[in-house]
Amino acid sequence: MVGMRGAYGGGGGYSNGNESQPLGGAAGAAGPMTTETSTEIVGMEVHKVAPPPPRSTLSKMKARVKETFFPDDPFRGFKGQPLGTQWLMAVKYLFPILDWVPGYSFSLFKSDLIAGLTIASLAIPQGISYAKLASLPPIIGLYSSFVPPMVYAVLGSSRDLAVGPVSIASLVMGSMLRDAVSPSGEPLLFLQLAFTSTFFAGLVQASLGILRLGFIIDFLSKATLVGFMAGAAIIVSLQQLKALLGIVHFTTQMGIVPVMASVFHHTKEWSWQTILMGVCFLVFLLAARHVSLRWPKLFWVSACAPLASVIISTLLVFLFKAQNHSISIIGQLKCGLNRPSWDKLLFDSTYLGLTMKTGLITGILSLTEGIAVGRTFASLKDYQVDGNKEMMAIGLMNVVGSCTSCYVTTGAFSRSAVNHNAGCKTAMSNVVMALTVMVTLLFLMPLFVYTPNVVLGAIIIAAVIGLIDLPAVYQIWKMDKMDFLVCVCAFAGVIFISVQEGLAIAVGLSVFRVLMQITRPKMMIQGKIKGTDIYRDLYQYKEAQRVPGILILAIEAPINFANSNYLNERIKRWIEEENSMQNKQTELHFVILDLSAVPAIDTSGIAFLTDIKKTIEKRGLELVLVNPTGEVMEKIQRANEAQNQFRSDCLYLTTEEAVASLSALAKMTKP
Amino acid sequence: MVGMRGAYGGGGGYSNGNESQPLGGAAGAAGPMTTETSTEIVGMEVHKVAPPPPRSTLSKMKARVKETFFPDDPFRGFKGQPLGTQWLMAVKYLFPILDWVPGYSFSLFKSDLIAGLTIASLAIPQGISYAKLASLPPIIGLYSSFVPPMVYAVLGSSRDLAVGPVSIASLVMGSMLRDAVSPSGEPLLFLQLAFTSTFFAGLVQASLGILRLGFIIDFLSKATLVGFMAGAAIIVSLQQLKALLGIVHFTTQMGIVPVMASVFHHTKEWSWQTILMGVCFLVFLLAARHVSLRWPKLFWVSACAPLASVIISTLLVFLFKAQNHSISIIGQLKCGLNRPSWDKLLFDSTYLGLTMKTGLITGILSLTEGIAVGRTFASLKDYQVDGNKEMMAIGLMNVVGSCTSCYVTTGAFSRSAVNHNAGCKTAMSNVVMALTVMVTLLFLMPLFVYTPNVVLGAIIIAAVIGLIDLPAVYQIWKMDKMDFLVCVCAFAGVIFISVQEGLAIAVGLSVFRVLMQITRPKMMIQGKIKGTDIYRDLYQYKEAQRVPGILILAIEAPINFANSNYLNERIKRWIEEENSMQNKQTELHFVILDLSAVPAIDTSGIAFLTDIKKTIEKRGLELVLVNPTGEVMEKIQRANEAQNQFRSDCLYLTTEEAVASLSALAKMTKP
Repeated sequence: MVGMRGAYGGGGGYSNGNESQPLGGAAGAAGPMTTETSTEIVGMEVHKVAPPPPRSTLSKMKARVKETFFPDDPFRGFKGQPLGTQWLMAVKYLFPILDWVPGYSFSLFKSDLIAGLTIASLAIPQGISYAKLASLPPIIGLYSSFVPPMVYAVLGSSRDLAVGPVSIASLVMGSMLRDAVSPSGEPLLFLQLAFTSTFFAGLVQASLGILRLGFIIDFLSKATLVGFMAGAAIIVSLQQLKALLGIVHFTTQMGIVPVMASVFHHTKEWSWQTILMGVCFLVFLLAARHVSLRWPKLFWVSACAPLASVIISTLLVFLFKAQNHSISIIGQLKCGLNRPSWDKLLFDSTYLGLTMKTGLITGILSLTEGIAVGRTFASLKDYQVDGNKEMMAIGLMNVVGSCTSCYVTTGAFSRSAVNHNAGCKTAMSNVVMALTVMVTLLFLMPLFVYTPNVVLGAIIIAAVIGLIDLPAVYQIWKMDKMDFLVCVCAFAGVIFISVQEGLAIAVGLSVFRVLMQITRPKMMIQGKIKGTDIYRDLYQYKEAQRVPGILILAIEAPINFANSNYLNERIKRWIEEENSMQNKQTELHFVILDLSAVPAIDTSGIAFLTDIKKTIEKRGLELVLVNPTGEVMEKIQRANEAQNQFRSDCLYLTTEEAVASLSALAKMTKP
Repeated sequence: MVGMRGAYGGGGGYSNGNESQPLGGAAGAAGPMTTETSTEIVGMEVHKVAPPPPRSTLSKMKARVKETFFPDDPFRGFKGQPLGTQWLMAVKYLFPILDWVPGYSFSLFKSDLIAGLTIASLAIPQGISYAKLASLPPIIGLYSSFVPPMVYAVLGSSRDLAVGPVSIASLVMGSMLRDAVSPSGEPLLFLQLAFTSTFFAGLVQASLGILRLGFIIDFLSKATLVGFMAGAAIIVSLQQLKALLGIVHFTTQMGIVPVMASVFHHTKEWSWQTILMGVCFLVFLLAARHVSLRWPKLFWVSACAPLASVIISTLLVFLFKAQNHSISIIGQLKCGLNRPSWDKLLFDSTYLGLTMKTGLITGILSLTEGIAVGRTFASLKDYQVDGNKEMMAIGLMNVVGSCTSCYVTTGAFSRSAVNHNAGCKTAMSNVVMALTVMVTLLFLMPLFVYTPNVVLGAIIIAAVIGLIDLPAVYQIWKMDKMDFLVCVCAFAGVIFISVQEGLAIAVGLSVFRVLMQITRPKMMIQGKIKGTDIYRDLYQYKEAQRVPGILILAIEAPINFANSNYLNERIKRWIEEENSMQNKQTELHFVILDLSAVPAIDTSGIAFLTDIKKTIEKRGLELVLVNPTGEVMEKIQRANEAQNQFRSDCLYLTTEEAVASLSALAKMTKP
């Protein structure tokens, strides 16, 4: 009984005495010539494959950790500076406001003032609307447009980000919390859960930044996001049918099927006054949006349309006393600034799981939006945004928000675009916006009493319609069918199953695709391009020709447990096919494995290499390796310490040199 | 409001009119020279990068599906054969027995007879022991050594596999089912669940084979298996303390902590007679094992030791009436062959989840062992084992087994090694073993009445001790520290948490590592090796030198959503570093991106390429791409259809040609 040693993957390097005997014998007798002396015989210059300079395990791990978690090396400017400067730089790193405040001028302020007022006119109606989307009191949306932008202005490094509540995070938070608690039945508990979820969202975001795990949001690929956002836009719009049609008894579910069923089961509740008003304002908002898209300089048309709609509709309701004609209105809102809410954070075990999950998902979603928006505008103005630093800023902003009656906020794309177009220069535009919201909160709240809910629904629909990006879907379809599938799955999952599951399916599919690229790595047979010394894929280059007697294979993936069995079987099959093809002209003598594109190898991979070498030698052929890179070469050396299988005469630096040497060898031994 | 278009990854290819203006302007004015005419100016021969021959989406998908699911192309021999031959080949493919039966001779049978009797002597005591490990009646272990080997002999393609119950699958099945049902309280229900789980295990195995998803078992890497099996061996051995110490009230938990607590809480139940007997036989079995390991020709010593132990211990108990001296014995076993059990399969919804989960996990685990064993011995004797075909055989064997009172079986490593060493030639040795077990079942069952349980415990410990493979652990440590971590996690997870969770942690960690290789791909700066035209990693090759004014970067991974942001930031940082380094001597003019080792690219990757080109051009530099392979070149072409960014003058076939052209260009424009 020998246990399971060497059972997996042929176990080349690990065979115990007993089993390796037949192999050892065969290997010795295999090749028609021993290549021990090849370099001398051929007499041509052959370059050696060098291993990378030796390093200790510790320093290698350090380097890898640095490359994984600090690829941007945020403190590289610190080196060689005196201690005082280093302190100053660290404080500046933590509070990017210090970067621009000292040089702030009146002309910069003029730009920021205009931009700030413009986004405030957008932020007030959107804040109220998005809070309703999350089933929260409208005032929470305004609170959330006051404190977080101030915090971000101090901590954030983007100059264009306009901070506030956003549609997707509002939708997801509302839908997840409604599953457990009814917002109308237990409004206080619902509010507590919303603040607690916001706290966890902030915690998740800040932790991702501090632990430098920002790459996690990269797993939401563009294709996933396009599909997800289109689906979310439709879900959000469908929810607005309640307000647009004036329905009172509406389903609490989100899927397209129950919502449509609910809409057509309650046709009696439809109110023509509401519908008329809703359609008019929706057409107005969409027209304004179209104008701004068509003539970018008229960006202020769509920026001011929502506030204009609110004002006009409120006036209309007030003048015609429309609230008595089945048009529902917001009602009384209290004046005053955010009240502290840390006493409302609820860490009760009954709801802890729910709030943590909601925080995690809304945190990651809003982070994705905030970072993507920040990066887009940074790239437009060519300045750097430090992703991990931004995550800390957004996270801290949400933690502070959760203690001051705010729910999840982030950098909204629509408002940031307006901010950018309005000519903002620094984060001061956020401060201007926050102060405007403050004035509203202190003095203007009574004006919203008669604002009809239907206009808020219209504002939401006009806002989220921009999330449906058909040109991007077409581009994805043209570029990559698999990405298109991911996109469609995200879309269908969101509208038919649920927001979270749609997202999970799309992310799972993307990751599965990446894993499949490793499990079934790309391999190609190379040939010599006529009249050159260049070796390229035979399939891609028609002018490339096989080298008689030599099979040149290139592997393009790390070799590891997930693909070593596949590679083993596939290479054997290729050799068989080659043999049955070549036997008419020339016999196959050599197999060249080009490892240039193999960035890493694990123990299973090394076992595969030793195993395939033995198998190939058993068939009377010889295997040589070309250009193993750093880590691979290092591990081949270590494998050699156990069994000296890959001597320097089967390692070549280039395919060209390998072919030249082997051809010369073959000629010498032929007669 | 422009939606989130182009927000993610800089959105190079998807920017809408408004945003692309500043970029477009900058790009046009960026380069110090337009390279439109480079090839003519330089006058040297430059080779074109060719796209692969055009194919329809459908044919590409067909090729990919074939490569993914049929990499071994099992029917490639069928081509060009007449229909009759094709039918014959198909039947032979399904029933590999037809391959060897026609040429079967008496001399082959002699070898198989000896091997079959040898493994039978091992299979009988192990069958009884493993059934007890799974908390099943001992006779089920013998049933499972009778029917499945017969089925495998007809369907299986391995010549060395010895089929029967195995320790790991027994352990896992027992532990998972015991969580829900007590084997002593409800023995019939427990038995029903075991058969149903076996049915599902077989179904999973056969489905993996039929759907050609065999690669799923590859995700159990060697490192995972080594750690998992060592942990399982310890768990199994600890369970035997019950029998070895004669404890009556033993915990039903599996973890090392509760088991040790249980052992030392019941010291009063320890029976010195049992301990004495157990230790003696354990020493005998381990000594026999050592002899066989030391002198492989004496393999029969360890092969026959278990049966010898059973016979001797039974005689001892019988003679000394030891059952009256607190030594527990097996007791009465009914004579007779397997009874049909399809009426015992339980598809009740209460237990459906449990049996499906148990079937899935035991199915995959036993499949992994069976396939690994089959491949190991096939590689030793240099014949082919078709993994997917084997899965169907093992799966069908378990489905048939579940209907004939058998529980999960597979090819056991220990018995297969003995089979191989005993000189088996074909699957006939399994038939001989099954017939021997049949004789035992029919006539010899009364002889086991007095067999003490303690000796079964000793047999299990001696068997599973071989699963602890310290040399492999050492090899893994030496070769790859990350694999070692996976191994340790699997080990610790199994002994401290649970068998399933330990496995899940290790698989998760392995997959995470693969994903990290994509998320943080290897990149290197290349330089020219002195006196040659070869460009290699500057870090690995000390004789490589930077080319003044040119930064040569090579990426070694598919470019996709998971790494495009990283690549973007990392390349920018490299350019900055290069600039601050080079500014003393020569200015940086060109960035060469070597894509030879990029096997695939998705929409995010293409967006990254266009974005980095724009960014680089904004900084007054120029980006050229070298050797994009098939799929990448195809997508670059498609991106060009939208925006003609990558014209043929920024695509080179080799780094050498790119450097030559660019250097000539730089010289021309300098004065």
